[in-house]
Formats: sequence, C-alpha cells, structure tokens
Amino acid sequence: MSIKIGITGYGNLGRGVECAVRQNPDMELVAVFTRRDPKEVKILTETAEVCRVSDMEQWKNRIDVMIICGGSASDLPRQTPECAKLFHVIDSFDTHAKIPEHFAAVDAAAKQSGKVALISVGWDPGMFSLSRMYAEAILPEGKDYTFWGRGVSQGHSDAIRRIEGVKDGKQYTIPVESALSAVRSGENPQLTTRQKHTRECFVVLEEGADADRVEREIKTMPNYFADYDTTVHFISEEELKKNHSGIPHGGFVLRSGVTGWQKEHHHLIEYSLKLDSNPEFTSSVIVAYARAAYRLASEGQSGCRTVFDIAPSYLSAKSAEELRASLL
Amino acid sequence: MSIKIGITGYGNLGRGVECAVRQNPDMELVAVFTRRDPKEVKILTETAEVCRVSDMEQWKNRIDVMIICGGSASDLPRQTPECAKLFHVIDSFDTHAKIPEHFAAVDAAAKQSGKVALISVGWDPGMFSLSRMYAEAILPEGKDYTFWGRGVSQGHSDAIRRIEGVKDGKQYTIPVESALSAVRSGENPQLTTRQKHTRECFVVLEEGADADRVEREIKTMPNYFADYDTTVHFISEEELKKNHSGIPHGGFVLRSGVTGWQKEHHHLIEYSLKLDSNPEFTSSVIVAYARAAYRLASEGQSGCRTVFDIAPSYLSAKSAEELRASLL
Repeated sequence: MSIKIGITGYGNLGRGVECAVRQNPDMELVAVFTRRDPKEVKILTETAEVCRVSDMEQWKNRIDVMIICGGSASDLPRQTPECAKLFHVIDSFDTHAKIPEHFAAVDAAAKQSGKVALISVGWDPGMFSLSRMYAEAILPEGKDYTFWGRGVSQGHSDAIRRIEGVKDGKQYTIPVESALSAVRSGENPQLTTRQKHTRECFVVLEEGADADRVEREIKTMPNYFADYDTTVHFISEEELKKNHSGIPHGGFVLRSGVTGWQKEHHHLIEYSLKLDSNPEFTSSVIVAYARAAYRLASEGQSGCRTVFDIAPSYLSAKSAEELRASLL
Repeated sequence: MSIKIGITGYGNLGRGVECAVRQNPDMELVAVFTRRDPKEVKILTETAEVCRVSDMEQWKNRIDVMIICGGSASDLPRQTPECAKLFHVIDSFDTHAKIPEHFAAVDAAAKQSGKVALISVGWDPGMFSLSRMYAEAILPEGKDYTFWGRGVSQGHSDAIRRIEGVKDGKQYTIPVESALSAVRSGENPQLTTRQKHTRECFVVLEEGADADRVEREIKTMPNYFADYDTTVHFISEEELKKNHSGIPHGGFVLRSGVTGWQKEHHHLIEYSLKLDSNPEFTSSVIVAYARAAYRLASEGQSGCRTVFDIAPSYLSAKSAEELRASLL
C-alpha cells in the first residue's frame, strides 16, 4: 500500500514535488489543491485530481501526508497550521528568524488534531541545517561557515525587476572563492558580508531606460545589494531567456575545528550541493521527509518536528536491515 | 550532572576519546580500563582512574556510557556484547561486511540487560554512512561514490612492515583527482578499483635489504596493492619520523542524481572530510553519540542502534529550542 500524497499550491515547488513523488515507488500523488480554477490547472500525473483548496476537507481520509508548497512570507504561517487540523503535513518554511514562532503555531494545531507536522524541510533550512548541527556536535571547538551559490536568488531577482526601467532580470549569488579557500585552510577567518559573496545581475531594460541610473539603483539598494560587490550586465530579452531561464542553486556548509589535548589537530567537514533546479531538489528533500512523517504518524506520534528530530532511517524506503547491510 | 564516561582500551582511539570528552562540558571521564598493568598506563585526565578490564563490574553503577576502543578484528566482537551486559555502550566496529552479525550479537546482549548499544560509530562507518543514506533517500535515481584519502591506511602500512627487509613504513591512500572530477561533472562513470585510488608507500629498509625485491613484493601483494597503481619511496628512518608520523585521513562521499519529469535536472551532493588525526576525529564522533546513547537510555530504550536510528538532535548539547533558533 503506497503513501498517499497531496500537494497544496502548484508552482515550481508543487511541480517539483509531483516529479519527486514519481521517483519514489512507495508513494502516490492523489490530489493537487489550488486557489486557481482547477479547470485551468494542468498537472502531469494522470491519476491525480486537481481540486479547490476550499474542498480540502473532503479529502481528510484519503491523503496520508499533505505537502504545502506555499510561500513563507504570507502563505505558510496560515496554511500549515490550518492544514495540520486535517492532515499530517510538511512545509519548507524558510524565514529563519521566524521559525520558533511558526513552530509554536504548527505544534499547537498538530497536537490538537493528533497529526504529525514537519516544518522547514528543504536544503536551507534543511540539509544545510543538519550539516551545521552534526558538525557542531562532533567538533564543539570550531567555527562554521555557510556559503550560498552559485545560484539564482528569487528575492534579489524580484528586487531588480521592481526598479523603474527594468523589463526583466535575474540575480546570481556567488561565493567568493578566496574566502572559501581561507576557510578550508583552517585559518578560521572573520568574514564580512562583502567578503563572502558577490552578486551578479543580468538585466533587460525597457526601451529608452537609463542604464546608468538602473545600475546605480541596483548597486546601492539597501539590504539587497549595498553590502555586496555587485556586477550588472545589460542583455537582450532573448539572451536572458536563452541563458538565464534555469533556477540553479547550491552552496557549501563548512566547519573548521580542532581536537587533541593541546588542540593540536585541525579538521574540516564540508557539505556542498550543486543543483540544476533549486525547487526540484527542495521537493526531493521534502518527499523523503514525507515518508518520515508517515512513519511517525504510524507510530501514533503527533505534534511539530524539524529535520533535527527525525532519525535518518525514517527517510529511506529501505528496511533497517537493508540499510545496515548496504549503506553503513 | 554530567554524563559519566568510561573508556575500554587506551590506544590511539582511547586517547582520542579522552581528549574529546574534555571538549564537552556536559561529560566527564571517570575511568579507563586496560588489559595492561594499570600502574604502567598514564592517562591525561587527572580526575579519572585507570583500572583493570577484569574489575569492570565494580563500576556498573558509576559509568553512564562505556566507550569500547578495541579493534574490529578480534576485540569488539567479544567486548561489545560482554560490556553491554553492564553498561550502555558504543563501539566503532568497522568491518562493513560483518556489521549485521555484530549487530545481532550486541542487540541480543543489550536487550537482555536493558542497556542501549550503539555500534559502528565513527566516520566510515558513521558520518559517511549517514551521507550515503541521506543522499540516496533524497535522490533515489542516482549513483553514489565514496573516495578515501589522502590518508594513512593502518592495514596497508602493517602489510608493508610484514615484508622481509622492511624496517618501517607508511602507506597513503590517495583518491584519483580525475575520477573525482568525472563524478562531480555528472558523468556517472563506472570506476574500477584502480581508477578510484592510488597508493603511495614510504619505506625504510633494513640494512642490506634488496630495494627492488621489496618494491616488487609491495606492488604485487594481492588484495592490498595488486589492483592499484602504487608508488614506493625509500626514505631514511629520520625522514619517516619527521614527515610521516601523523595519522591524517579523510575522503569524499558523492551522490550524483537526477530529478524532473524527464530527469532533465542534475544534482550533486558532496560530503567531505579532511582530518589531521583519524583517531581523534573518530573519537569526536563517538563522544557526540555517547550523548545520544545516554539520552536514549534516559528514555528507557534498550537494544542495539546505529547512526541511522538516531535523531540528530540527540547528538547536541543544545536543547531543541536552541537548535531551532540557532542552527535551523
């Protein structure tokens, strides 16, 4: 019997989940919930239904785990606790500073309904968080570093597109190679924002727009660009479509630490991702954790969890015996 | 109240555990057990006792977790089940093929005594196993690769030293850079043993020994060297001591996989370690898992576990709230 998956929200992440479910034979996508008119939404899975978000309650007993693919800013703080009244749920809430608050709201809802909820699942938060946590526990005397990229930042691309005279644009976050090298060498450098990442922008101008002004507005934009060394390239719409339509991302989590009675030995732990598709990789992590949520639920557990609380074996379709024999 | 740690076996690994315990303020080393005459064994921790292995039973209620630092070939298969009758235990059993058998023996002993046992903790098996498992669960369609090195292989160094005419020697296992690059590029290469690693030997000859014969014997030794491209350097005893007395190691676990409806997107997950001291890093992993064993025991659990079964948060001295706020 397969694990029945529902998806709420059918954007890049929702489509990624749909693809990931197909790669896991013990799972089945049964329904996609949308705020749009279901007739207008074409999904890839022929055996799944497209339904209105408002009809969700009718699916209460037909979905094992609901994967909530909304945005962290306004969707998830409302949707995840709401859905947790009806289903075991997972989201990829990624506003790091608001995780404690979100956790509390989801935990209360899930405990009341007796459901399992997993929040902030993906790669950061998610696999990067796990890497930071494992590495810190192993090397308590050390320093950790997270670098992102090379990859597209959706938030920064949006910020560029809001500038007057900009027709379209994409922004890449790029880790500074010399900073990475300094960390790997064990120097434990103190790195400023500017020293860790650079930003590269590809911008399509509206006809007649002033390139100099646009470039200046980008480079001086507070929070987004002012603290970074930023490069701006003006390109044609065709070139943007041809060379910058993907959503790649990735990054590095490093911990540099010491052991020994005199702290005489240095160690470097490094975890890195190079991703052709940020949303599809995030989805793949979420789907593995959907299996974990299902298993926790089968054990009668309830309440909110994060990746820190989940034993690794719960993610795998393999039995404990198989894991010990093949992967340990 | 701190977690009371015992160590059985005071070689490189036992000393590493001693150092690691000192880096964790919630733990305390209380006793080291040795098969040697306790008077002959000098340890670093002034507050801990050195005792005979045969006196272990007297410590039954004074040690929370016993860390067993014996060898996998002959010590651990006997010691771990034996110790699990008296204590919660951890070992770093690393004979991959015999893990299921060792697990069964330790599990039976630990269940009978109501103790928690954690086996095969370290970096491979251990952190590398976890990386393989997480990555496979996330990217079910893909291929994984493990490379070891650059680092000292104890087994291969011992094999060199058994050759007639060899006074001393060290062997380094080195991953082949071009093979690593091929994996990182997403080619998913099929790699032979020879294509993945080379072996480099530093050998001190006995006076009058035939260098050519020794080199030939090394390079043609079945299992250890015959399937590899091996380089042999003859050096002086002084040079060996000066440049090759450390026990560095490390390696890489990579998974190269695809996602998307048409499998159109490629992803690379990479975990790597660069370690100045193999035994001290292994010890550091073990000590973090000692905390986990203690917590499982506090919950009333019993029986054998591996790294796959342990929720990451159990390794950290931080509370769940702190972890969510600081590391997620």
